[in-house]
Amino acid sequence: MRVEIWSDIACPWCYIGKARFEKGLAAFAHRDDVEVVHRSFELDPHRAKGDTGPVLEMLAKKYGRTLDEARAMEEHVAANARSEGLEYRTDGRDHGNTFDIHRLLHLARERGRQNELLDLAYRANFAEERSVFDDATLLALAVEAGLDEAEARAVLADPAAYADAVRADEREAAELGASGVPFFVLDRRYGVSGGQPAEVFTQALEQAWASRAPQPVAVAAVQGDADAPACDVNGNCEV
Amino acid sequence: MRVEIWSDIACPWCYIGKARFEKGLAAFAHRDDVEVVHRSFELDPHRAKGDTGPVLEMLAKKYGRTLDEARAMEEHVAANARSEGLEYRTDGRDHGNTFDIHRLLHLARERGRQNELLDLAYRANFAEERSVFDDATLLALAVEAGLDEAEARAVLADPAAYADAVRADEREAAELGASGVPFFVLDRRYGVSGGQPAEVFTQALEQAWASRAPQPVAVAAVQGDADAPACDVNGNCEV
Repeated sequence: MRVEIWSDIACPWCYIGKARFEKGLAAFAHRDDVEVVHRSFELDPHRAKGDTGPVLEMLAKKYGRTLDEARAMEEHVAANARSEGLEYRTDGRDHGNTFDIHRLLHLARERGRQNELLDLAYRANFAEERSVFDDATLLALAVEAGLDEAEARAVLADPAAYADAVRADEREAAELGASGVPFFVLDRRYGVSGGQPAEVFTQALEQAWASRAPQPVAVAAVQGDADAPACDVNGNCEV
Repeated sequence: MRVEIWSDIACPWCYIGKARFEKGLAAFAHRDDVEVVHRSFELDPHRAKGDTGPVLEMLAKKYGRTLDEARAMEEHVAANARSEGLEYRTDGRDHGNTFDIHRLLHLARERGRQNELLDLAYRANFAEERSVFDDATLLALAVEAGLDEAEARAVLADPAAYADAVRADEREAAELGASGVPFFVLDRRYGVSGGQPAEVFTQALEQAWASRAPQPVAVAAVQGDADAPACDVNGNCEV
């Protein structure tokens, strides 16, 4: 079974939702038969690269609140994160454009390091005093995740690298009806929205597993070639 | 959309079928939205590692034919291969256990090099004077495919590395009703068996694409948390 998770590194509920999903997955009997793929979604796609600023100021301005009120909003989210065992700093975080980290996450997926990079990026953004909006940190995170430094540097230096892949993920999220993230899709048949409790993910996994089509529908061969040549399980090859 | 292809490096119709599938895929309008995953299937899983021998002798013995008759059978397959632009040698090929190359193909998948390694292995086996049954050649192929030499060597040296992944693929092939290879599964909903003409693959891709569920079914949240916290497309995060 395959689970696709749309998320953004700047999204607190994605950070928390990932931990809850993983707890839900750990309680699922067929967890070893589940493949997880992370897909791109930007919360603020129109922000210019390099235009970063403190999260609290952004929140206060966006919602017309004082800085203290914004901090209280963040404290509520932080309490949720801590209840999942996740560190969460409410002060000192920046907000910015996440396109480049999504491009790197696509490279990481191709190199089998996507989950590692995503966890490191979440940790840098939410738990550590690191900004995920400058190339130096992104490169360091890529290397920590096990990516080749030269390859990661080349991707960061070329704005076109994996740009289409990021946009394709975002287009697909819209097509699948995602109005927000985190958004979880199981075998392209079931969707779970938001940072649900772990039990909801376990239940969704069980539901999707139980309703799997036992076998794919055979596509009838056209052109009278219904019996196309193959090699069978006993090693017999048609000639 | 996702296409999974079960095949064995020792299977001529898999070699030919891959070329035909790729031709069919190239004619499919949404080819850039198709992800291909190769899965393991052994034609001769019970053969001991190191027990290799000429393909023609194996065929003659298996089917009670003379060597010339076996060569004629192979010539028929070779003609099919050549009509797809593939080189195919009927003499000098060995038959043997393919478990180790499947283990390497799983490593290659994790490192984003699966298609490269598969093409090189097919080429070594069917077109070049190379045996894919000794560790030295397998290691050389892995390096040519872009894998890290030390990592590939470690996988070859540890018989348990990716062994479960190979067996899981084979179990899944049986569950999906594959009685032979190549076996193509589109989005786990449609199956195509054998080395079909390219047009059949295009047609199957179009059929699977047209019948995609437009949106996944939302999984109802349990425990009264139907409105789980999320960040929306405008960057608004619930608190």
